[in-house]
Amino acid sequence: MAQNIYDDATFFAGYSQFPRSREGLAAAGEWPALRAMLPPIAGLRVLDLGCGFGAFCRWAAEGGAAKVVGIDLSERMLETARQRSPGLPIRYQPADLDDFELPGENFDLVFSSLAVHYVADFDALCARVRNLLVDGGKFVFSMEHPIYAARANPEWTLDSAGNRAFSVSNYLSEGERLTDWIASGVVKHHRLISTCINNLHGNGFRLDWIDEWGPSDAQLAAHPLWIDDRLRPLFLLIAAGADSPGSARA
Amino acid sequence: MAQNIYDDATFFAGYSQFPRSREGLAAAGEWPALRAMLPPIAGLRVLDLGCGFGAFCRWAAEGGAAKVVGIDLSERMLETARQRSPGLPIRYQPADLDDFELPGENFDLVFSSLAVHYVADFDALCARVRNLLVDGGKFVFSMEHPIYAARANPEWTLDSAGNRAFSVSNYLSEGERLTDWIASGVVKHHRLISTCINNLHGNGFRLDWIDEWGPSDAQLAAHPLWIDDRLRPLFLLIAAGADSPGSARA
Repeated sequence: MAQNIYDDATFFAGYSQFPRSREGLAAAGEWPALRAMLPPIAGLRVLDLGCGFGAFCRWAAEGGAAKVVGIDLSERMLETARQRSPGLPIRYQPADLDDFELPGENFDLVFSSLAVHYVADFDALCARVRNLLVDGGKFVFSMEHPIYAARANPEWTLDSAGNRAFSVSNYLSEGERLTDWIASGVVKHHRLISTCINNLHGNGFRLDWIDEWGPSDAQLAAHPLWIDDRLRPLFLLIAAGADSPGSARA
Repeated sequence: MAQNIYDDATFFAGYSQFPRSREGLAAAGEWPALRAMLPPIAGLRVLDLGCGFGAFCRWAAEGGAAKVVGIDLSERMLETARQRSPGLPIRYQPADLDDFELPGENFDLVFSSLAVHYVADFDALCARVRNLLVDGGKFVFSMEHPIYAARANPEWTLDSAGNRAFSVSNYLSEGERLTDWIASGVVKHHRLISTCINNLHGNGFRLDWIDEWGPSDAQLAAHPLWIDDRLRPLFLLIAAGADSPGSARA
């Protein structure tokens, strides 16, 4: 079972103060890029893995999705999500991304924002997602970029010219990282881009698009501090299609 | 036209001293992983982009490839390649990876070792390679990993705990880098993993396997200094298949 740090009162209070926690998708710099990787949402059956406060679920429901299910380990987050979604046909359901089951259900789109780096076994997650998707369905997700996630605690240094540089170490050593983010001892998992891609392929997905996201010039003009996200990538965005059995790979 | 630094006498002399320059594939730590990504070589028509001293061409010819062509910008390297390949049916040919043409020829495998980071336009290279490959052919190549190539000159620092860390900066800013490697002012090109993958897909390739290579435990035991390649990746290995027109992507 994954660590349920989001139900820790102190963590929850801290997390709730982030712009994206208060303002939703509009405050997430990577959202325009991630949105562009999504299929047209109207009519789709949508599952959000690690739905948090429900921002994506609301966007999908308001966009005419045929069915919207959001799962999350944190009861506190689901409670807030429900409060923020009055009258919207969204089902919020507590579940652990490490072992959730939704028997008898199928989806056209499985989405996840910044949650899969909490999952210990990404290969198993890919298999689970593939089984929930109809043939031709899409799995679109974001995660911490491994350059950012390689160290337990991210750190900047100065290079020999006195410029800020981001420290990378233990990049090739995948596995658990205990990081201090809002609270101390938050458990996340570092994995390579190559592992993500090969796991997707191994579970019947075809990679559609991948984006080592960085801010656009317009975003940088509006948010000068986002220059950090040009120096080193913070997020990795991936869109993959669930191959039909008839299109087996060589 | 690409910079022809390998024909610079000083650079050439320095490059010639590297273990992999003198001993060939056996001295290249990533070779076992790259070899595992290749199709069985016997009977294939093979093109090596940036063949250098011809180590891979000889391996392919000795393995029974039906045809082996190695192209390189450096006349010095091709001359050495020819000297090292007596009696082998290999055609070594001077050509610039930025604009080479091989009219009327087709290949089953296009290979490239540590050369594509000298190419300014990877998208155009993918198109050129796709046109040379038969349907179902393979493009297997290695390149500098962008974590390594992001800075003009790679640099280690010490983190707050006093441990070595590799400096990453300007990762999201793709383009030319002037680096000091053997000689000063060597021109190479930094591009993201995501760009490589999306360019391959956009030119009719299907990604088969990707490896952010690091040394195995056995390699590390034999070469303790290769620990650097665990802390930050040096090489990126990619195998892609040339889709047939009938398997068009969604």
